[in-house]
Amino acid sequence: MGIRKGKYDAWIFAIGNEVVQGRVVNTNAAYLGRKLTMLGYDVISVISVPDDPELMSYFLKLAIESKPAFIITTGGLGPTYDDRTSGVLASVLGVEWTINEEALRMVKEKYAEGGMELTPERVKMAKMPEGAKPIPNPVGTAPGIMYEVDGTLIVALPGVPKEMVEMFEKYVEPELRRRGPRRYLLEASFTVKGVPESSAAVAISKVMKRYVNIYIKSHPKGHEVKAPLLEMYVMVSSDDEVKGKELLNKVVKELKEELVRLGAQIL
Amino acid sequence: MGIRKGKYDAWIFAIGNEVVQGRVVNTNAAYLGRKLTMLGYDVISVISVPDDPELMSYFLKLAIESKPAFIITTGGLGPTYDDRTSGVLASVLGVEWTINEEALRMVKEKYAEGGMELTPERVKMAKMPEGAKPIPNPVGTAPGIMYEVDGTLIVALPGVPKEMVEMFEKYVEPELRRRGPRRYLLEASFTVKGVPESSAAVAISKVMKRYVNIYIKSHPKGHEVKAPLLEMYVMVSSDDEVKGKELLNKVVKELKEELVRLGAQIL
Repeated sequence: MGIRKGKYDAWIFAIGNEVVQGRVVNTNAAYLGRKLTMLGYDVISVISVPDDPELMSYFLKLAIESKPAFIITTGGLGPTYDDRTSGVLASVLGVEWTINEEALRMVKEKYAEGGMELTPERVKMAKMPEGAKPIPNPVGTAPGIMYEVDGTLIVALPGVPKEMVEMFEKYVEPELRRRGPRRYLLEASFTVKGVPESSAAVAISKVMKRYVNIYIKSHPKGHEVKAPLLEMYVMVSSDDEVKGKELLNKVVKELKEELVRLGAQIL
Repeated sequence: MGIRKGKYDAWIFAIGNEVVQGRVVNTNAAYLGRKLTMLGYDVISVISVPDDPELMSYFLKLAIESKPAFIITTGGLGPTYDDRTSGVLASVLGVEWTINEEALRMVKEKYAEGGMELTPERVKMAKMPEGAKPIPNPVGTAPGIMYEVDGTLIVALPGVPKEMVEMFEKYVEPELRRRGPRRYLLEASFTVKGVPESSAAVAISKVMKRYVNIYIKSHPKGHEVKAPLLEMYVMVSSDDEVKGKELLNKVVKELKEELVRLGAQIL
């Protein structure tokens, strides 16, 4: 079922009407995509869905059934009627959605600081799929969720970027580093003037063919015909940092040579 | 097959390693999500995938099989080896991937302006699924693709935001407006101080229950316990603009009343 590419596949989800309807830009996904990539995971998709249980279930099921190494969701963990991530996760996983005692303690403590009682809306934030581990939220009130099934680590974090980043770096990143590949990703980029992307394509293909585990991409920044300007991005993957660095330098050098041969000016 | 919610379902795709790996923030999706929502379409998912034909096919197939009203992709239309959107679309649609004469004319003209020949990389940008209609690109060189199948309009645009926006507004938006529902979406938002989101949840639920076709969401901006600050967002959908406006005002008024009752201060 589903699609699986490799041992370190990762799926990123963002849940919320405000995301799919474009009222907010999904910076969480960019942050997580960058983090996961640098940790050696392969982000095979980033999916945003509205606060709709049916749509959430449909896409989360696709992800879980494909048995990736890691699935992370942001959003939908708060106290309002449309915060549904936790309940939907339980139903997709086929387990009870129930009060997690550890999570309840976390939520209770937060509100006690302000002399506030536990209302049903606050207790709701402590409901989790049975067997989940709550992730402390040092910034806000809703705990995150960590759940493991068939070798897939599933993590649900709040959508508020400040909370999400703090929780990811403190509680999720160390776990991913422990489980992840020993892989070094090395990057370089430079700007090239005077060669259209359609010509640079030839240079890129030439260099790409010489090596494995390298990736080159051109990003047009000027006008293809009238004022060609390209940002060239090179990424190298290696299990040895020194060898990776050497390979990166070599690839950049050869790519620049090929581009200069086409009349490019390296900026 | 797939998941279908309503008559005006829309799927948004972004194609490119740089998106899933977080080197760029997907502002295209936010722009399109906002546009489609205001045109009365329901964005049921926003999916980013790497430049990987297998992953692209997998997710595009899901979308096409669910027969939504509209599918739009951004990215992967350029001249380089990893620009694969057009070819993958052809294969998913089960049609030939072949040179589109109209598109070839567009591409040829662009390069002719700079006195440049047609190379294989440039011709590639004119290859499209058989039966597609090319969309002119007033900003860059790669034409977009418009294709219709089983009541689904499929549009592929370049990933460069300036090109995408210009092409969308000039050639895609009028078509969507023509096909879309006659629906007016009216929005309002205001800021509330002194009530935690977990308390506001009660007020929101109360008002939500009184009406259909309304949507209320709270976005926490302060600290739930220590300094609660919420941005309240209200959206109303109506086939009559005047009635929609009236409903919106009513909902906002009642929501404010309920919040004030909880001790909130409306800013």
